[in-house]
Amino acid sequence: MSAIKYTLQKKDGRARAGVVDTPHGQIQTPVFMPVGTAATVKGVRTDELKELDEQIILSNTYHLYLRPGHEVIRAAGGLHKFMNWDRAILTDSGGFQVFSLGAMRKITEEGVSFRSHIDGSKHMLTPEKSIQIQEALGSDIMMAFDECVAYGMDRRYVEQSVEMTTRWLRRCKDAHTTTDTQGLFGIMQGGMHRDLREMSAEQIVALDLPGYAIGGLSVGEPLELMSEVLDYCVDFLPPDKPRYLMGVGSPDALLDGVSKGIDMFDCVLPTRAARHGQVLTSEGTMNIKNARFEMDFTPLDHECNCYTCRNYSRSYLRHLYKSGELLSSTLLSIHNLAFLKNLMTGIRTAILENRFDDFRAEFTKKYYADKS
Amino acid sequence: MSAIKYTLQKKDGRARAGVVDTPHGQIQTPVFMPVGTAATVKGVRTDELKELDEQIILSNTYHLYLRPGHEVIRAAGGLHKFMNWDRAILTDSGGFQVFSLGAMRKITEEGVSFRSHIDGSKHMLTPEKSIQIQEALGSDIMMAFDECVAYGMDRRYVEQSVEMTTRWLRRCKDAHTTTDTQGLFGIMQGGMHRDLREMSAEQIVALDLPGYAIGGLSVGEPLELMSEVLDYCVDFLPPDKPRYLMGVGSPDALLDGVSKGIDMFDCVLPTRAARHGQVLTSEGTMNIKNARFEMDFTPLDHECNCYTCRNYSRSYLRHLYKSGELLSSTLLSIHNLAFLKNLMTGIRTAILENRFDDFRAEFTKKYYADKS
Repeated sequence: MSAIKYTLQKKDGRARAGVVDTPHGQIQTPVFMPVGTAATVKGVRTDELKELDEQIILSNTYHLYLRPGHEVIRAAGGLHKFMNWDRAILTDSGGFQVFSLGAMRKITEEGVSFRSHIDGSKHMLTPEKSIQIQEALGSDIMMAFDECVAYGMDRRYVEQSVEMTTRWLRRCKDAHTTTDTQGLFGIMQGGMHRDLREMSAEQIVALDLPGYAIGGLSVGEPLELMSEVLDYCVDFLPPDKPRYLMGVGSPDALLDGVSKGIDMFDCVLPTRAARHGQVLTSEGTMNIKNARFEMDFTPLDHECNCYTCRNYSRSYLRHLYKSGELLSSTLLSIHNLAFLKNLMTGIRTAILENRFDDFRAEFTKKYYADKS
Repeated sequence: MSAIKYTLQKKDGRARAGVVDTPHGQIQTPVFMPVGTAATVKGVRTDELKELDEQIILSNTYHLYLRPGHEVIRAAGGLHKFMNWDRAILTDSGGFQVFSLGAMRKITEEGVSFRSHIDGSKHMLTPEKSIQIQEALGSDIMMAFDECVAYGMDRRYVEQSVEMTTRWLRRCKDAHTTTDTQGLFGIMQGGMHRDLREMSAEQIVALDLPGYAIGGLSVGEPLELMSEVLDYCVDFLPPDKPRYLMGVGSPDALLDGVSKGIDMFDCVLPTRAARHGQVLTSEGTMNIKNARFEMDFTPLDHECNCYTCRNYSRSYLRHLYKSGELLSSTLLSIHNLAFLKNLMTGIRTAILENRFDDFRAEFTKKYYADKS
């Protein structure tokens, strides 16, 4: 029996509402997953994540392999126990991070050798190694070790890379021993080429995995191009499995993804933006350090009921940010996560009530008002 | 009627258990007050402070005057509302901070002119100005604007400074308009000179204020000298008013202060130490980054029941600290505050049960075991 099971509840156009069952609880989709790179969503306690009703978070194999080391986390009883989070966790494979190292890594059929960004020490990640690490972490959803091709690479390179990613996926599947407790998702690649995307999808779908991700998007291409590629990608994936668009978190991209049938998203945007004083509100983004908030004793967002908005004013949050106080990152991160959670809840409810297009139009009009 | 009222409950030797009634609730003494310099105890939410049962925190006039400005906080409805803390607040006068500026300040009879550490802008603090700022902040206990003489200044300077501090205290008292809602504490100075301490005490006690602090200790002198000076200072103060020893927070100094009849303490130690990975435990201090904690899945302190100890291991906390994660400061600060809170609760209970000396000996034996 697979550890991960998807149930479609409702379609509204191509948009889908469903649930993903995991060994650590149910996830209502579409879902945005907060990123907890190093076994912590930066600045936010896990009980705060629960108060936000987050059902799944993402953590990073590359980072945890290097520090504290997956054997430490295995000895702790797994990542859930180590970081005090008893709901679902998805781990990436480390592939994206090692490819991002640029000159510090080398790709071969065997895998990727690289130097640590922390101390320069030499390491090698292979499909087998990535799965071994993710099994030690004990995440609910493991991602396949793939090659995420940079935007702008030539077609021939992309084609060969797709073939290698499929071979790597087979090796991941063969290495996977914990099928009862952890689900392995495959990742579609193929750059901005329709036929290569289709080829990639056919090859990975043939392996009958419990979920599929679309990789290689949101890697620097224009938003219109991403939307165009995404449009056909989704149709290459089976309707009875969850679909995960990696690295996407801006409201417009989330709405676009949902409209095309995506169920899962992740991005560092809400917490990274928070650390830079950038706040997501129903009327668009604002920077808390702006002088106009000096005497503004209203909450960040009148429509928000998060801990930060219930208890603190823009004036106070501006003061904390300008003073470089730790609490600034915490309070703004809580709010930004709440904002995206509310957006996804609104989206899901709208799908269930057959009014997703209206919801999207209304939200977009208000959120992007300044830019129209 | 005074805003601040002290009731002595029990004496055990010179150690005292009592309560201080404030407009924002009762404080059980002896008490250690966490420092919230810029309207936040660094890294800790106010509801976490409540979970720790903190009854009073300290905030800094100098910092809040410069940023965000006391007029912002006045407009917010006062510091309690601004920072979302409905229990008691004590504000210092700004005196200690401006004297610490060294070459960037100049002292005259009128007050202290100085340059901001933030932007170099010119300002002047006087007794009247300090009270006006503290009234805008709306703290429960305001501290007099005094001169905190550096350790090692000659006797003649200290004597003249004591006289000026008394003149400044009279000006503070005259400037104070909110006697129903805010209490003004005087500060004894006099350096390490017994007769000057006695003179200072006589002069400030004559003004019949609701509480008195001992300033000018814990400013670089050896701990033994501080203890010796403190020993006679306390007896110069009236028994029916709370006694506050400024800037003290290490367990040995707290125990020593209590043994001599001190009721209130404050120090940045627990939160500053936490940000440097330094942890207070019943068996002494430890640094969380130590390699021996890599696979240590026990809590920071077996005797502690704080949020951090209930939910996280030394291994995880070491990982967070070494990764430079924001959550590290938060979780270690919560623990260190809990440790001092537990210490003060233990002290108070011991006094009420007439066994303070035993408590002190037992705690000290365990805490300083490595050093004996």
